[in-house]
Amino acid sequence: MYPNLSEAATALDLAPLEAELSPGALVTEPDVVAAHSTDRALFCAVGTARGLVRAVTVEDVQATLRFAHEHRVPVVPQGARTGLSGAANAVDGALLLSVAKLDRVLEVDTVEMTCTVEPGILNQDLKDHLKSFRLAYPPDPGSVAISTIGGNVATNAGGLCCVKYGVTRDYVRSLTVVLADGRITTVGRPTAKGVAGFDLSQLFIGSEGSLGVIVGITLELVPELPEAITAIALFPDVVSASGAVTDFMATGARPSLLEFLDRQSLRMLNAYGDFGLPADSGAMLLAQSNGDGSPEAAVRELESFTEVARACGADEVMFSDDPNDSDLLIAARRAVSPAAEKYAMAHGGGELIDDVCVPRGRLREFFARVVEIGERHQDIVVSTAGHAGDGNMHPTVFFDASDPGSVARAQQVFDEIMAAGLELGGTITGEHGVGYLKREWLARELDPVSRELHMSVKRALDPHGILNPGKMLAAL
Amino acid sequence: MYPNLSEAATALDLAPLEAELSPGALVTEPDVVAAHSTDRALFCAVGTARGLVRAVTVEDVQATLRFAHEHRVPVVPQGARTGLSGAANAVDGALLLSVAKLDRVLEVDTVEMTCTVEPGILNQDLKDHLKSFRLAYPPDPGSVAISTIGGNVATNAGGLCCVKYGVTRDYVRSLTVVLADGRITTVGRPTAKGVAGFDLSQLFIGSEGSLGVIVGITLELVPELPEAITAIALFPDVVSASGAVTDFMATGARPSLLEFLDRQSLRMLNAYGDFGLPADSGAMLLAQSNGDGSPEAAVRELESFTEVARACGADEVMFSDDPNDSDLLIAARRAVSPAAEKYAMAHGGGELIDDVCVPRGRLREFFARVVEIGERHQDIVVSTAGHAGDGNMHPTVFFDASDPGSVARAQQVFDEIMAAGLELGGTITGEHGVGYLKREWLARELDPVSRELHMSVKRALDPHGILNPGKMLAAL
Repeated sequence: MYPNLSEAATALDLAPLEAELSPGALVTEPDVVAAHSTDRALFCAVGTARGLVRAVTVEDVQATLRFAHEHRVPVVPQGARTGLSGAANAVDGALLLSVAKLDRVLEVDTVEMTCTVEPGILNQDLKDHLKSFRLAYPPDPGSVAISTIGGNVATNAGGLCCVKYGVTRDYVRSLTVVLADGRITTVGRPTAKGVAGFDLSQLFIGSEGSLGVIVGITLELVPELPEAITAIALFPDVVSASGAVTDFMATGARPSLLEFLDRQSLRMLNAYGDFGLPADSGAMLLAQSNGDGSPEAAVRELESFTEVARACGADEVMFSDDPNDSDLLIAARRAVSPAAEKYAMAHGGGELIDDVCVPRGRLREFFARVVEIGERHQDIVVSTAGHAGDGNMHPTVFFDASDPGSVARAQQVFDEIMAAGLELGGTITGEHGVGYLKREWLARELDPVSRELHMSVKRALDPHGILNPGKMLAAL
Repeated sequence: MYPNLSEAATALDLAPLEAELSPGALVTEPDVVAAHSTDRALFCAVGTARGLVRAVTVEDVQATLRFAHEHRVPVVPQGARTGLSGAANAVDGALLLSVAKLDRVLEVDTVEMTCTVEPGILNQDLKDHLKSFRLAYPPDPGSVAISTIGGNVATNAGGLCCVKYGVTRDYVRSLTVVLADGRITTVGRPTAKGVAGFDLSQLFIGSEGSLGVIVGITLELVPELPEAITAIALFPDVVSASGAVTDFMATGARPSLLEFLDRQSLRMLNAYGDFGLPADSGAMLLAQSNGDGSPEAAVRELESFTEVARACGADEVMFSDDPNDSDLLIAARRAVSPAAEKYAMAHGGGELIDDVCVPRGRLREFFARVVEIGERHQDIVVSTAGHAGDGNMHPTVFFDASDPGSVARAQQVFDEIMAAGLELGGTITGEHGVGYLKREWLARELDPVSRELHMSVKRALDPHGILNPGKMLAAL
C-alpha cells in the first residue's frame, strides 16, 4: 500500500509549511530531530526524519497534515515518546509531529464529571489537577508520571487499576481529531449516553497515530477512589501464584489491584532499592481492595484472597491497612521497570518486554509454558511481572546485546512467549501496543478478513498512507 | 450515494439464493413479508421487501449477503423488531434478514466472566440463564423482555441501569460479524485487556445494521448485582425535580437507578394499573442504591438523595427496603411505555417519543424549555419520563393522528424538543437510535467533517450501499 514516501519527498521545500506554522514550531536541525526520533522501545528501527513540528496550536497540527497530505510526506505523531513498541520512532523522510506542548486542562465539569484536556498533559499532572475537585481519572499505566493523556488514548493505555477500573478507552467520551488531510472534527458523544451515528472516537483510541492526530480529549471521571488495604502472598513458584489469581478472580472478586512478581523480579527490585520485599520467594502476589468505600467489604475481600492463596499453596500471606505499606508496595511494583533496566545494563544491555494477555483461566498453563521456554534457553534470563488480575503479563527477556547469538535466542524466547499467549486464546499485546515491535505478530493474531478490514478503514481515513507508515499496519 | 437499488433488482430471481439457504429459510409470501416489515416505531416509512430470510445458521447470513452484494439488493437486518426508530423497517426491494432464530448461549465462562451468545437471544432470557452462575449482564433497555442481544448491540441499547452500570457498548468484548459481501470475521479482543490493532467491534456497536450483520457476541459479565433499596421523592414541578437530579449527581453519587416521571406520566400510569403511585404530583424521582453490596452505604446514599431532594423543593420523600415496593416501582417505571400507548389510543392515536440526552447540569434548563414548548402548543400533550441520572429524557408527544394539523404540530413539538436538546449541548438520541425517524436530525447533530467521516467508513465497509439504506446515514 505504501509507496516510497521518503524518496518522493526528498527534495521537498518546507518553507511553505513553516510559513503557516507558529514561529519556531518547525525544527530541522538534525541533532534536535534525531533526539526526538525514538520512543522507549528497544531494538526497533529508527529512520531519519526531515523535521520536527512542535505544535503549539491546533492549527499547527492542521497545517502540518494538510502539507503532508498534499506532498505525500509521512507524519509520525508524538506525545512524550514513552511508548514501548516503537510507534513514535521516526521513519525516513517523515515529519515528526509533537503535540506535547498542547498540555492545558480546558475544563473540569464537576456536575457531568468530565474534563476536557489537550493531548500533551501528563497523566499524573491531570490526576493531581483533579484532586482539588475530589475527582479521579483512574487509568494508571506504568508511565503515569511521564506519559501524556494523548499518548494514553492513542495506545489505549492500561495500568494497575484496570482489574477494577478498566482501561483508557473506558474513560473517553469524545475526541477532537485532525484527520490525515488536515480537516478537524469532534467524534464521540457529548453526554453520558448517546447513539447519534457511529462512535468514531473508538476508531482513534488505540490507533497509534495511524488514523489521525488527537488534539482534544473529553474524559469521564469518577469520584475520588476510596482508600485501599493491601495484602501480599508469597508462593513457592509462579504456577501456584498464577493459579491463585485464576481462582480468586473466579470468586467474582473485584480487587482494585492484583499484581504479580516472580522471583527474578523480586531479586531485581531488592538490588534496586529497599522496598521491604522478601529476600527470596518463588512469586509474590500483591492485592488491594477498597471495598467500594466499605472498609468491612475490603477486609472481607482480602480475607477471601488469603483463603484462596493458601488453598493454592501460598507459603505466607500478610495484610496491612497502613497506607505507608501500601505506598511502598506500589512504589516497588512501579520500580520493576527501572529495576529491570538497571539489571539489563549490568548484564549485557539487552531487554525485550513481552505484553501477553491471556484469559484468566489460562494463567497456570501460560506460566508453565514460560517456565518451560526459559528452561530451554539457559543463557537467557526471563523475569515476569504483570497485571495478574487481567491476565496481562510482562515476561521480560534479558540478553547480551553485543552477542548476535544471544540476541537471536532472546528474540526467539520473546516470540515463543507471544506464540504461547496466542495458543492459549490470548493476545500479543494487552496494553503496550503493536508499533514497530510487533507488526509482524499483529498479522499472526488477526484473521485474514480482519486484516483486510483494518486496511479498508486505514485507506478510508488516510488514503495516501501518510500517517505513521511502517508500524502497526505494515504487515497486514 | 445510493442508486435506486430496488429498480435494479426488480426482476431478480431468488432461486439461486434459496438453493444456498437452509430449507425454508427464504420466505416470499407477501403477507408474511409484510408482517415482518416494521419495528415498533410510529410514523416511519415502510417499503415493500422482496423476501424474508430467517437465518438458522451463520452460513445463511453469509449466503444472503453474498447474494445481495453481488446483485445490489438492499438488506435490512432484523432481530425482534422492537426498535423505536424504524431502523428495522423494510425498504423497497429489500431482503429482510432476520437473525432472531440464532438464539443460543454458546458459552458461559465463569472464570473470565464472559458469555458468548448468538444475536437472537432475548435480553431477559440471557439474564435468566446467567442467574444460575451468579453472574449478571446489566444492560436493561425498556424492551428487556422482548428485544434481542443482537439488536441491543446493533443499537447500543441503554436502559435503567446505565447511570451506574453503563450501556451495551461497555459490555461487548468481541463480535463475530458478517460483512456486506458475506465475509465473516471476529473483531474486538479475546481478553480483559487487548490492543492488537483497531478495536473494530466498536464500529458495529450502534451501527443499526448499516455496516455488517452481527452473528456472535462475547459479553463481559459482572457478579450478580447486590439488592438495592428505594426512595421516591415527589416535587411540585418538573424543574425542581430535574434540579434535584443535577445536584444529587454532582455529589458524586452512583445510584443504581435514578428515574424521572412527570405529572402526565403518573396520570397515565394510574389509569393503566395500580402501582401505589401518588394520585397527583408535579414530578416524581425514583432512586435506588445498592451501596455496591454495603447496606449501610446504600442507606447513606439515599439519605443524601433525600437531603438534596428536600433542598430542591421536594414535597415528600419516602424510603423503602422492602423488595416488593422496589419491584412494584420498577414495574411502574417499565409500564410507562404501554401506559402511554393506552393513553394515545384513547386520544387520537398519535405518539412520538423523543430521546434527548443532555448534560446533567443542563436538566433544569431542558425542562424549562419542554414546559415552554408544551405551553405554546395547547392541543398537544407532552409527557416526560426518563433516565434522569444520565440526563436521558423521553418527552413523548401525543396527538390526533387523524388530524393533519395535529400531526404537523406534534412533529413541530417533537422537533423543537430535539432542537432544545442540541442547543443545550445534548444529543438527539440517547439510546433509541437514529433509524428512519431521526435521519434528518443526525445531519444536524454531526459536524460536516464527521458526516463525511461517517460516509467514508460506510463506503469502506459497504461499497455498494446495500446494508440498511435510507436509514441512519441517508441524510449525511
